[in-house]
Amino acid sequence: MVEPRVLKGFRDYPPALMIPRERLMETARQVFRSYGFAPIDTPALELTEVLLAKVEDGAEINKQLYRFKDAGGRDVALRFDLTVPLARFAAQHYIELGLPFRRYHLGTVWRGETPQAGRFREFMQCDFDTIGTLSNAADVEIALVINDLITALGFDRFEIRVNNRLVLNGLLAQLGLEENTSALLRSLDKLAKIGRDKVIAEMQTEAAVTSDQAAQVIALAETTGSNAVILDQLNRRFEDNEGVRKGVKNLREMVDVFRTSGVPDGRLRVDLSICRGLDYYTGTVYETFLLDKPDIGSVCSGGRYDNLAGSFTRQALPGVGASLGLDRLIAAMETLELLPKTTTTAPVLVFQLDASRYGDYQRMARTLRTAGIGTEVYPEAKKLGQQFQYAERRGSKIALIAGGNEFAQGTWNIKILATTEQTPVSEADVVATVQKLLA
Amino acid sequence: MVEPRVLKGFRDYPPALMIPRERLMETARQVFRSYGFAPIDTPALELTEVLLAKVEDGAEINKQLYRFKDAGGRDVALRFDLTVPLARFAAQHYIELGLPFRRYHLGTVWRGETPQAGRFREFMQCDFDTIGTLSNAADVEIALVINDLITALGFDRFEIRVNNRLVLNGLLAQLGLEENTSALLRSLDKLAKIGRDKVIAEMQTEAAVTSDQAAQVIALAETTGSNAVILDQLNRRFEDNEGVRKGVKNLREMVDVFRTSGVPDGRLRVDLSICRGLDYYTGTVYETFLLDKPDIGSVCSGGRYDNLAGSFTRQALPGVGASLGLDRLIAAMETLELLPKTTTTAPVLVFQLDASRYGDYQRMARTLRTAGIGTEVYPEAKKLGQQFQYAERRGSKIALIAGGNEFAQGTWNIKILATTEQTPVSEADVVATVQKLLA
Repeated sequence: MVEPRVLKGFRDYPPALMIPRERLMETARQVFRSYGFAPIDTPALELTEVLLAKVEDGAEINKQLYRFKDAGGRDVALRFDLTVPLARFAAQHYIELGLPFRRYHLGTVWRGETPQAGRFREFMQCDFDTIGTLSNAADVEIALVINDLITALGFDRFEIRVNNRLVLNGLLAQLGLEENTSALLRSLDKLAKIGRDKVIAEMQTEAAVTSDQAAQVIALAETTGSNAVILDQLNRRFEDNEGVRKGVKNLREMVDVFRTSGVPDGRLRVDLSICRGLDYYTGTVYETFLLDKPDIGSVCSGGRYDNLAGSFTRQALPGVGASLGLDRLIAAMETLELLPKTTTTAPVLVFQLDASRYGDYQRMARTLRTAGIGTEVYPEAKKLGQQFQYAERRGSKIALIAGGNEFAQGTWNIKILATTEQTPVSEADVVATVQKLLA
Repeated sequence: MVEPRVLKGFRDYPPALMIPRERLMETARQVFRSYGFAPIDTPALELTEVLLAKVEDGAEINKQLYRFKDAGGRDVALRFDLTVPLARFAAQHYIELGLPFRRYHLGTVWRGETPQAGRFREFMQCDFDTIGTLSNAADVEIALVINDLITALGFDRFEIRVNNRLVLNGLLAQLGLEENTSALLRSLDKLAKIGRDKVIAEMQTEAAVTSDQAAQVIALAETTGSNAVILDQLNRRFEDNEGVRKGVKNLREMVDVFRTSGVPDGRLRVDLSICRGLDYYTGTVYETFLLDKPDIGSVCSGGRYDNLAGSFTRQALPGVGASLGLDRLIAAMETLELLPKTTTTAPVLVFQLDASRYGDYQRMARTLRTAGIGTEVYPEAKKLGQQFQYAERRGSKIALIAGGNEFAQGTWNIKILATTEQTPVSEADVVATVQKLLA
């Protein structure tokens, strides 16, 4: 006998976790598809050489890889993100795919991190990108997708915060700090988390700038006001900086398209403190905050990059995209009580009183299923109490109960499980009644 | 520069493969849910000890494992099926899950087989099972799910062939061949594939039976006639064999429930040659054949087992389930030309003629998306020819085209891409017109 257990840092998804997860993933897919983003998938296992093609030797991710030699002696590893596989995929297939190319990818990734509360070694990523175009229209569209995505997932109160790396670079150039860009942006990225003073201290040690210079960077990042006010101010301040003016123009176009295309006001906010820590990004950057749960951080983030697949091909593949933080979002929905508590996928449970009438139970269930109503039939003719217990445990909403008397009269007892109400309904009226009760 | 490539035996899924795949998976999920089957997921990586808990030392699967030591020195492997994970999962969680428990699981599995045409080392399994009940109602329901599943996937002409191991065991007992059951059923399982003579020869060498005994086994398996005729004949022949009578009773109940619950005639066929090779099955066994593509073999197979998780728990967990052959089915649909040729998920493409009107293009797209119509906006204001080429490549159905004149008049040109037809339509009528054209 082997003790049944999972590996440390891994977890099972029982129905209570998997039902909302699947629903969210399906909603996300629908939104992506509605914009013409197409699904792709790539192998979980790749050559280590491919996965590490653009990773520096000492990088953290290097130590986190699930890496081994396969039976053929090849050095292989489980993918740790979906970006490297996209780069490899795009380099290999861009000719037959045709550019521009919009793709989404929901896939599992693995990282051998030290497990922490709420962090797992196996998790799902949910990425969407448009590659092969420099057009700002693609950047605007990614923000529109984020808006539809978070709306479709059931949120109304959220904010997509956008910035453009060109604006930040312009400021750093004005201060003579171009060379420290990476270190400064990595520190600035922590502003919301660790606060002004700590960021200034870190910039001094990590990027070798004066406290005055650090304060100026932060002052720009903290510029407040309406989108129009912030953008106008930038244009005045950086009148002769082409990069900043391009960044401002792109942000302004995004703001305009949001208005023209009818997105509710307030969803898009220019926020100069958003910078994303990665060197990778070169233009627009996005983060998305739930206004009722800002402490969980951004639930959908991304940006524009100049060159996706430089490690694999000479073909320049610029692009723009974002990633939905599925697990973070589910955790937020759980605390906000936005997740229905159920472990069944079918709201109706047909009780089984008489095993010899199983065909009739399934006939009724079939009628309901055909009307689009998920319907379980209890699989054994057990005691009523046990069937009620099952219904309660599963979170079923409605029970249909019929025995000899009901079959003789052509009726079904319909019971709303949260109450003690029970009503006999003639067979022909069952579907309509159940539909009304579930509405 | 690293050469972009995938491992031997692995493959990418570009949109042309992934779009139908995702659609099939979603359809399957919907059918499972409509019966109250609930989704679960388990880790891709497990302790090797767990995955091999019920595998014999010399077994083929042992050699096919992707197995390695993780950073913590643990002996781990990628799952090679979803049955062992279900057994482990059920043993670990059956108390909080409550029994009976219906689950489905769509998941990737890995086997380091020698790659052959159409066989991959990474593939998707799609399993559904009811565990924790001995009731034949669960067996009947699995067949009903198969029927709804194959129907929902777009097939009308198919047959679920069922048998019961109790019937086969009864025959073997009558012939005094109980001890050779495993070897005989493994040979019998090949009847459709290699034919009568070869099966007889194999039974003689593998199960040490006479050619006469082998012929008797096959004669029973080849019994033909209506379901009722076959079942009546069995009852007469095995009058005093309790096992056979129970098997017949269960099959008869399935036939009856199919009729009572209104499944079209001919979908369920008692076929005594169906036996499934695995020792694992103890009762009902299922296979499913597409009548227009019988050569690809069964597209959905399974059966009843006595003890799912004996390697992990003393708790008896009987169950019944089946597995949908997703890849096989997609291949069949491809040859039968049942798969739409498209690499976009959105039937409508809004052309971009004037970059400064991008907000208006997205506004129209938004209106269509809100009406449930997937709509792409071409991401750059490129030449018309290039946008048409893109539409053709993607398999878009309808183009919406508007420039200065159209905006001045408040109209959109609607073009059906398969034809040369192009009609100007006033903005307010676009949704209705597109809906009509797509219907």
